[in-house]
Amino acid sequence: MAAPPPPIASRPVVRLRAAKQLRVLHGYPWVYSNEIDMDAAAKALAPGSVIRVERHNGGPVGTALFNPHTLIAARVLSADAEARVDRAFLESRVDSAVAVRSKLFAQPYYRLVHAEADGLPGLVVDRYGGVLAVQANSAGMDRLLPELLQVLTERLRPRAIALRNDSPARILEGLPQETRWAHSEADGPVRIEEGGATFFADVLAGQKTGWFYDQRDNRDFVAALSGGARVLDAYSHTGGFAVRCARAGAAIVTGIDRSDPALLMAEKAAEASGVAARCRFRRADVFAELEQMGGRDDRFDIVIADPPAFVKSRRELESGLRGYRKLTRLAAALVEPGGFLAIASCSHNVSPDAFQEQVARGIQDVRRSGRIVRAAGAAPDHPVHPMLPESAYLKMLVLALD
Amino acid sequence: MAAPPPPIASRPVVRLRAAKQLRVLHGYPWVYSNEIDMDAAAKALAPGSVIRVERHNGGPVGTALFNPHTLIAARVLSADAEARVDRAFLESRVDSAVAVRSKLFAQPYYRLVHAEADGLPGLVVDRYGGVLAVQANSAGMDRLLPELLQVLTERLRPRAIALRNDSPARILEGLPQETRWAHSEADGPVRIEEGGATFFADVLAGQKTGWFYDQRDNRDFVAALSGGARVLDAYSHTGGFAVRCARAGAAIVTGIDRSDPALLMAEKAAEASGVAARCRFRRADVFAELEQMGGRDDRFDIVIADPPAFVKSRRELESGLRGYRKLTRLAAALVEPGGFLAIASCSHNVSPDAFQEQVARGIQDVRRSGRIVRAAGAAPDHPVHPMLPESAYLKMLVLALD
Repeated sequence: MAAPPPPIASRPVVRLRAAKQLRVLHGYPWVYSNEIDMDAAAKALAPGSVIRVERHNGGPVGTALFNPHTLIAARVLSADAEARVDRAFLESRVDSAVAVRSKLFAQPYYRLVHAEADGLPGLVVDRYGGVLAVQANSAGMDRLLPELLQVLTERLRPRAIALRNDSPARILEGLPQETRWAHSEADGPVRIEEGGATFFADVLAGQKTGWFYDQRDNRDFVAALSGGARVLDAYSHTGGFAVRCARAGAAIVTGIDRSDPALLMAEKAAEASGVAARCRFRRADVFAELEQMGGRDDRFDIVIADPPAFVKSRRELESGLRGYRKLTRLAAALVEPGGFLAIASCSHNVSPDAFQEQVARGIQDVRRSGRIVRAAGAAPDHPVHPMLPESAYLKMLVLALD
Repeated sequence: MAAPPPPIASRPVVRLRAAKQLRVLHGYPWVYSNEIDMDAAAKALAPGSVIRVERHNGGPVGTALFNPHTLIAARVLSADAEARVDRAFLESRVDSAVAVRSKLFAQPYYRLVHAEADGLPGLVVDRYGGVLAVQANSAGMDRLLPELLQVLTERLRPRAIALRNDSPARILEGLPQETRWAHSEADGPVRIEEGGATFFADVLAGQKTGWFYDQRDNRDFVAALSGGARVLDAYSHTGGFAVRCARAGAAIVTGIDRSDPALLMAEKAAEASGVAARCRFRRADVFAELEQMGGRDDRFDIVIADPPAFVKSRRELESGLRGYRKLTRLAAALVEPGGFLAIASCSHNVSPDAFQEQVARGIQDVRRSGRIVRAAGAAPDHPVHPMLPESAYLKMLVLALD
């Protein structure tokens, strides 16, 4: 190894508390506010400052982004306490994220940066061909954003960049809510090609960044089952599962959602994918609608239920778990014997085991039995930091019901 | 619902203990020996008897297979305590297993029956085109085996059926070890087609049933990454990962294994798949070989390590976990920056979280960093009973290393 560069003298130093430093020393990329010596100097640091993290005894730990006003006070950027967080640093992180995706995907439609896992804590970048959607969910990334946007522009030559700085995570970080075009503008919704179908995303006003790449592989799986099938896609959003199933040969697909703009996008996708004649989208509350369908003896060969997070905070855990059980019950009741139920949870606070338990109970509730043929998380463009298994938020179960 | 048929008077009755019945009433398919009234009558039942399970108060619970001499004393066959376990019953279970696979696979190469998840507790059937490999891992299934073989023969018209009754599970059930042809004979190893490659399995003498369908989707994933790559397949067995990677365009593939018969099969597969010139197989102890390769500065773009179970019983947990960490360390050290490490555990007794923790530590040990781009279990022909999440034994992690 080359000799280390001279210490960056101007960089603020934050020290770990002796009793709390072990986890960070083992590579955990987050430092909670109660794990550091939060003295007056630390408290006075500007949110988003680049800091030097030290052991209690002064030994170097790494370089981090700091925010004295949040629970996750420091997010480690590098195990090198002398790392320079400059243009070259950001370039190398972006290049590395692009390199991994280039090996995984033939087309430029993917999540390009998935926060901590890609070494850019709190940053999300979705790539829609020539259009990027960018979200900075930490004070540190927010501060680095102007430089990051330059790097993204230079490296990827996008047609447009949408800034989706309207996440709840930003509120916890004390950051303002903002959505705007940061570089040029896309004219109307962006096109996404997936599995022979065409979709549309409103990257500036749609849910999250307008599209959910995380379910790509689960869509592949369910679509492959749907030849000749009657499919119900509850929470159809912009038509991801529904239109993929129709393209794969489903006889008839019903999509329900509460959002009119999402339903419009779904219809547009069905049209562009040449399957509009086999797709019906309608506005409805999913729980009420499933209940009514059950009463009417409507039955489907495949029922998909991919709802928004039921558990947004730990306080909601119990009611959210009951929600997943009820959703399973209502959805399973609509599945023809020999058919499939695909049910998902994107709640961070619900473990895979807890989710599976509720699904198992929901199926028992309606006296059905079956096998889990798929238990999967998010697609590989949503990688997981090896030390942050809890960041694997998505859980999809596909059951073949008797 | 129709009126229930008259009780099956001759069927032995086993009652649950009051304090222990809740889990079974909620659908858990196993009854442990300490959960039932193990009186003299129960103890005297022949291993493999079909029994009626009752609540403590005499209410019906279900029909089960019983073995008074094992920890898992009863394996529930049906929630109907009056279910007749006859030819028609077995036919319907086999038909249902076939129906699910027919929706999942275009070709008859898959695990056809995966025990509890397919409603046939302890039974394993692997389908290799016209050849079946059958294993009965519970006393109940062993007793039903003659009838089951008739059903399989009638339903699937196989060319041959191999009986692989040589599993350690049979010893726990007090069953003899036996391998033989139960119906006709296959002439030599059977052919398997997967992902454009051809493989061979010795269904009568190979490891388990001669081939591992459970890794099919993981092989798909790793093969898709291997265009132009230098690939190392540790524990290459009969060449599954190695030959798939070579077929997918790997520049050079090295396979190492300790079993000469497995290596011969791997070479045969490389030959039949037209990639022998790019595959090298050799006999070696994996740990020793990886250590030597590390010392020689051998480097690969993809390293695969899919070892046999390190933890075969809970007593081995600690040493097994250390083994996974060490394997990760040795394997990660051989991965070129920007390359991939695919590492698996098939140990029942190691949870996904525990495995991931050891992998994360092993990577830290050699000061590497990276992202988990895939965390997956077994392929969908190895379904999971919704109440037995612990039966999901396979854990595969694929990491993109910096």
